[in-house]
Amino acid sequence: MTEADFLATLRALPLHPGARGLADDTALVAGFVVTTDTLVEGVHFLAADPPRDVAWKLLATNLSDIAAKGAAIEGVLLNYPLRDDAWDRAFLAGFGEALAHFGARLIGGDTVSLPPGAPRILTLTAIGSDAAAPARDGAQAGDVLWVTGTIGDAGAGLSIAQGAPGPEALLAAYRRPTPRMAEGRALAPQVHAMMDVSDGLLLDASRMAAASGLAVAVDLAAVPLSPSYRVHAGDSRAARLAAATAGDDYELLFAAATGFVPPVGATAVGRFAPGAGLTLHQSGTPIPIPPKLGFEHACAID
Amino acid sequence: MTEADFLATLRALPLHPGARGLADDTALVAGFVVTTDTLVEGVHFLAADPPRDVAWKLLATNLSDIAAKGAAIEGVLLNYPLRDDAWDRAFLAGFGEALAHFGARLIGGDTVSLPPGAPRILTLTAIGSDAAAPARDGAQAGDVLWVTGTIGDAGAGLSIAQGAPGPEALLAAYRRPTPRMAEGRALAPQVHAMMDVSDGLLLDASRMAAASGLAVAVDLAAVPLSPSYRVHAGDSRAARLAAATAGDDYELLFAAATGFVPPVGATAVGRFAPGAGLTLHQSGTPIPIPPKLGFEHACAID
Repeated sequence: MTEADFLATLRALPLHPGARGLADDTALVAGFVVTTDTLVEGVHFLAADPPRDVAWKLLATNLSDIAAKGAAIEGVLLNYPLRDDAWDRAFLAGFGEALAHFGARLIGGDTVSLPPGAPRILTLTAIGSDAAAPARDGAQAGDVLWVTGTIGDAGAGLSIAQGAPGPEALLAAYRRPTPRMAEGRALAPQVHAMMDVSDGLLLDASRMAAASGLAVAVDLAAVPLSPSYRVHAGDSRAARLAAATAGDDYELLFAAATGFVPPVGATAVGRFAPGAGLTLHQSGTPIPIPPKLGFEHACAID
Repeated sequence: MTEADFLATLRALPLHPGARGLADDTALVAGFVVTTDTLVEGVHFLAADPPRDVAWKLLATNLSDIAAKGAAIEGVLLNYPLRDDAWDRAFLAGFGEALAHFGARLIGGDTVSLPPGAPRILTLTAIGSDAAAPARDGAQAGDVLWVTGTIGDAGAGLSIAQGAPGPEALLAAYRRPTPRMAEGRALAPQVHAMMDVSDGLLLDASRMAAASGLAVAVDLAAVPLSPSYRVHAGDSRAARLAAATAGDDYELLFAAATGFVPPVGATAVGRFAPGAGLTLHQSGTPIPIPPKLGFEHACAID
């Protein structure tokens, strides 16, 4: 069963009004934002990834969804499979470090044992409060598409984690993403639509456009690349396409009216228009859409 | 790392006040009760169990924690690993059936793909509202220990699911437990302490006593057995001990003052006293404590 089939079937089940039709990464329950993400060993992280970093990433990816709704962190629940002592201890050390770093607190969770040889499957559920909670479907025709930070660093970091040579800064972007908590708080009350970029800029931009019933044109030349990324991968069209279709950025993608001046660092990368679908150009010159816009398998129920 | 070590380490991390020191199956967040449980294939359910029943059980076990706090069901989040079409479809059919049966609604969740051969690991998070939320640590010296329904049916049902002969009613108790939602709502405002019996009556009774800083004496002769259980396993001390140490009952265990008359069907099975530890007797005659009080591995972060 594909994820799309699964979601279509889920949508026919009794839904909470706060589920917003399962069309967002988060749900709203009485003023709280709720989100949950599962990381699978061998799918979302590598067996050789340091457990401290896996803990950090598990927390950071969930908080990124909270950030995209402009919420303050209320707390998190952890579902953890016990397997081996050293890994478990290192994971907990990293988890404690990440909780303290982000000012998050543990609400509860569950521990389970695993059959021999089973990959680790880690789930975190995060609850946020006081959210302006812009949905992903609120973009309006004429809106500008913006993104915070830089794009593609984590994707390059993944190849470095898998053995390719490359700078530590990119590896760190993959292993220790930083959710844009403060940026989300500042932006949420002012933007029309917002979501985090977890599966690839082009894929997530096309999702925002589809949810909003609009077309979106992305300017590949405008996609913000870091100095480390430029040194590592260059600045060719291929390098830019690789950045724009890689996952794990955890930047904020938002739609705002023409003339909007973001209160935080962000780059305009596209524009919404009546219609449907994603188009791509480089400073105005049309470019073919790549066959793969991002990581489909990693996306939340949305 | 044992679960106890893991929990001790977690308790040293930043905790939300609603976590109540991770000493309960549920947490409290601004008037909401939150609980999460993970079921592992090969540990908490059998690979041969019908997927419709696994879906039912996943929902029922979480709702049982909500019931133990006397809460109304707000909704649930599902973390689901896609693996094979027929199983996924049957699971969803059972999940929809169970949602409708219990009047629960889906809030959100996450789907992931699994590496080949990985066992399914299913997580459900349930949110309840309007809870009287008696903790497990509120029992008082002199209180009577009560339990709803009958004990041991699901434990016998597990052996039937594994191939032993036995009646359908016991198999159904294992595969389709019924959380005591209405009973929990009625009891919660009136009792001193309450929790669900998920890991074995004796183990859970000893946990309530330990959390409350008291001793508890359980009368094995009073443990309520179903007619099906008596026909299947008899009424010997061994049969009663098997029932009182088997898991998956999902009945409610509660402490109330002497003279309390439960508004729902329940049986008095013990009494709290100053001191510590669990003692066992049969109509007043002391009985040795069995080496295993229940299923340690299956318990929630508590």
